[in-house]
Amino acid sequence: MTQHVGELTPPVRLMLTPGPSSIDPRVYRAMATPLVGHMDPWFKGCMDETQILLRQIFQTENRITMPLSASGSGGIEAAVLNTLEEGDEAIVAVNGVFSERMYEIATRASSKVIKVEAPYGKPVDVEDVRRAGKGKKIKIIGFAHGETSTGVITGIDSYRKVADELGALLIVDTVASLAAVPIDVDKQRVDICFSGSQKAISAPPGMSPITVSPAAEEIFRKRKTKVQSWYFDLTTAMNYWGKDRLYHHTPPISLIFALREAMRLVVEEGLEARWERHRVNQLALIAGLEAMELDLLVKNPADRLPTVTAVMIPGGVDDAKVRNQLLDEFNIEIAGGFGPVKGKIWRVGLMGYCSQKPFVLLFLSALEKCLLDQGFRMANGAGVAAAIRSYSQVETGAAVSR
Amino acid sequence: MTQHVGELTPPVRLMLTPGPSSIDPRVYRAMATPLVGHMDPWFKGCMDETQILLRQIFQTENRITMPLSASGSGGIEAAVLNTLEEGDEAIVAVNGVFSERMYEIATRASSKVIKVEAPYGKPVDVEDVRRAGKGKKIKIIGFAHGETSTGVITGIDSYRKVADELGALLIVDTVASLAAVPIDVDKQRVDICFSGSQKAISAPPGMSPITVSPAAEEIFRKRKTKVQSWYFDLTTAMNYWGKDRLYHHTPPISLIFALREAMRLVVEEGLEARWERHRVNQLALIAGLEAMELDLLVKNPADRLPTVTAVMIPGGVDDAKVRNQLLDEFNIEIAGGFGPVKGKIWRVGLMGYCSQKPFVLLFLSALEKCLLDQGFRMANGAGVAAAIRSYSQVETGAAVSR
Repeated sequence: MTQHVGELTPPVRLMLTPGPSSIDPRVYRAMATPLVGHMDPWFKGCMDETQILLRQIFQTENRITMPLSASGSGGIEAAVLNTLEEGDEAIVAVNGVFSERMYEIATRASSKVIKVEAPYGKPVDVEDVRRAGKGKKIKIIGFAHGETSTGVITGIDSYRKVADELGALLIVDTVASLAAVPIDVDKQRVDICFSGSQKAISAPPGMSPITVSPAAEEIFRKRKTKVQSWYFDLTTAMNYWGKDRLYHHTPPISLIFALREAMRLVVEEGLEARWERHRVNQLALIAGLEAMELDLLVKNPADRLPTVTAVMIPGGVDDAKVRNQLLDEFNIEIAGGFGPVKGKIWRVGLMGYCSQKPFVLLFLSALEKCLLDQGFRMANGAGVAAAIRSYSQVETGAAVSR
Repeated sequence: MTQHVGELTPPVRLMLTPGPSSIDPRVYRAMATPLVGHMDPWFKGCMDETQILLRQIFQTENRITMPLSASGSGGIEAAVLNTLEEGDEAIVAVNGVFSERMYEIATRASSKVIKVEAPYGKPVDVEDVRRAGKGKKIKIIGFAHGETSTGVITGIDSYRKVADELGALLIVDTVASLAAVPIDVDKQRVDICFSGSQKAISAPPGMSPITVSPAAEEIFRKRKTKVQSWYFDLTTAMNYWGKDRLYHHTPPISLIFALREAMRLVVEEGLEARWERHRVNQLALIAGLEAMELDLLVKNPADRLPTVTAVMIPGGVDDAKVRNQLLDEFNIEIAGGFGPVKGKIWRVGLMGYCSQKPFVLLFLSALEKCLLDQGFRMANGAGVAAAIRSYSQVETGAAVSR
């Protein structure tokens, strides 16, 4: 009956997935720092610093700014359950698995939630949202800034405009975009913005940074019923992260150490440099994929999320075989598709630490080998060659001859 | 505006608190192992092993057995929200902050929750629970096996009997007791049992192991409404931890590595040896405290939880000053009291890695120094002397002369 469990000996992977991605060794070092207590006076300073960094990355001065002790899905749950009460009207724009999840969570809080949809691979047209809300008393509008399941980015500003017209709070899921794509919580007036530690911030998974505007705080104060989740009650959770440091629950201290260090790396690099790095590496990746005659799910370049690139699996090529070969021969992990695009796309993540030239070039070479083994024909070496040209072009400003 | 955040340089503490406690270096090493993806085929095996170890420690064959991606309070929330629907009758036995929390969470799920109370420092009399449930259709009875806020242990078997009489499920909070005190989930027929990673299992905080009986699973299946928390919906969360490995949310992979390693240490030591170690170290601690003429909150020795010892703060001694001196002079953290016993007790944790002879002797010496500095009079060296005698007596079986 007693089964023996041996030492932990995982393979060393390069995780080019839409999160978690591989992370900087400095972050592992910080995470392995011996624990201190969550009520230790020293830890209060560490919490302050964590919040300073979070505010810098969200670009906000919001009082309620903290990392939730949960994955990014916990961020969705906190944002939705703290704002909605039964009977409240809400709109969720759904164009993938994670915005669908926001809708699903919202329906557990109120029976009057409206879903406005777009096909996978496109953003939801803001005009459809405007139409859906017309004449209704909409309390929140929610959407995914970066849809991890498809690699689509949706602009914030036009949604803010509709939210203003309808008098609604704006909830934005930036799990796959924060620290990789321009986001300015205060200037863009996002009411609740949340993210995940394991995406472009490049910390291990397990925390969900969140920030709440004064207007949303006001809505919390006016609630008639208690938030239906005690764990995700932002008002009481903030009592611990706020000035008084009142105990709420024991946070994952080691993950806070790791998140703090990962955010130090973000701030050292600078947000603008980081955004540019993500942009340039995805451009090179896409140049390579297109040169290999592979199609992308997201047709409109302006809709492409820099952190996640969804590639159509070519006809005759076996999804699982390619992904397994990438793992077994190259120790590279990429992700498959979810829901309606399962078996139809691969998702390649270039986020945070993983958005690097060497990884782009290695991945394109490895993918070519796997596709070639499956009999998929393309110009030999064309992918890597195109990526090299793309980098050179961006850096020298000059067109490079073929 | 840009505030600089420097390197992470925490003090090295000995955490004799009711969790998180200091942990084995092997666990830090495992936690710092480079990440693999949560959908990586290798990780499936790692998840299986984590569940094998969890089942060994819970002593169960329950299908639903997994670590939740949350602190121990998340375990409370999952246990309560998956079983209760609005209108369901429930009883929660409250004798401290954490059982009060279970009551509070239950009231967010149903308006018909009965609180049965005992003063801080005592278990709730099971006869009071029987009386409260008489003639009612009670769906769940919940209580804290180990009340972290007071150091009280409550027996499981008499509660099981009352639950059987009332036809109720039994929910037991073993956050502060699992892996330190005898618990046999299957033999004792606990329906939902949950714990925390950072207590006697001695991993970092951030995960809440939970296990669910087939009878409780049946209740989940018969629900008329969805669980009001998506994040803590045990049925869908188990789809990821179960055979099919269907994605639910991204778990804190590094914390799973750490938990797995900490549980390997538990199993290597053996549950019975571990229970005995916790018993013996607390006996020595108590012998020392009593020799120092300090009183304990829990008067009845049979009610004392081996992991947490609540000491009455003697008159004229400053709570904060003593705890700060322990930190500043000795790098030892202990905890104060919560709620009604705030400022009245200290809580000394001897859990998992921290339940060790050298730590007991060091703590008693350090505490004597701090009390002496405050003018508290006792026989010099009496605490350490009594602890030494206690150890010797247990190990040689012989009474030791004073």
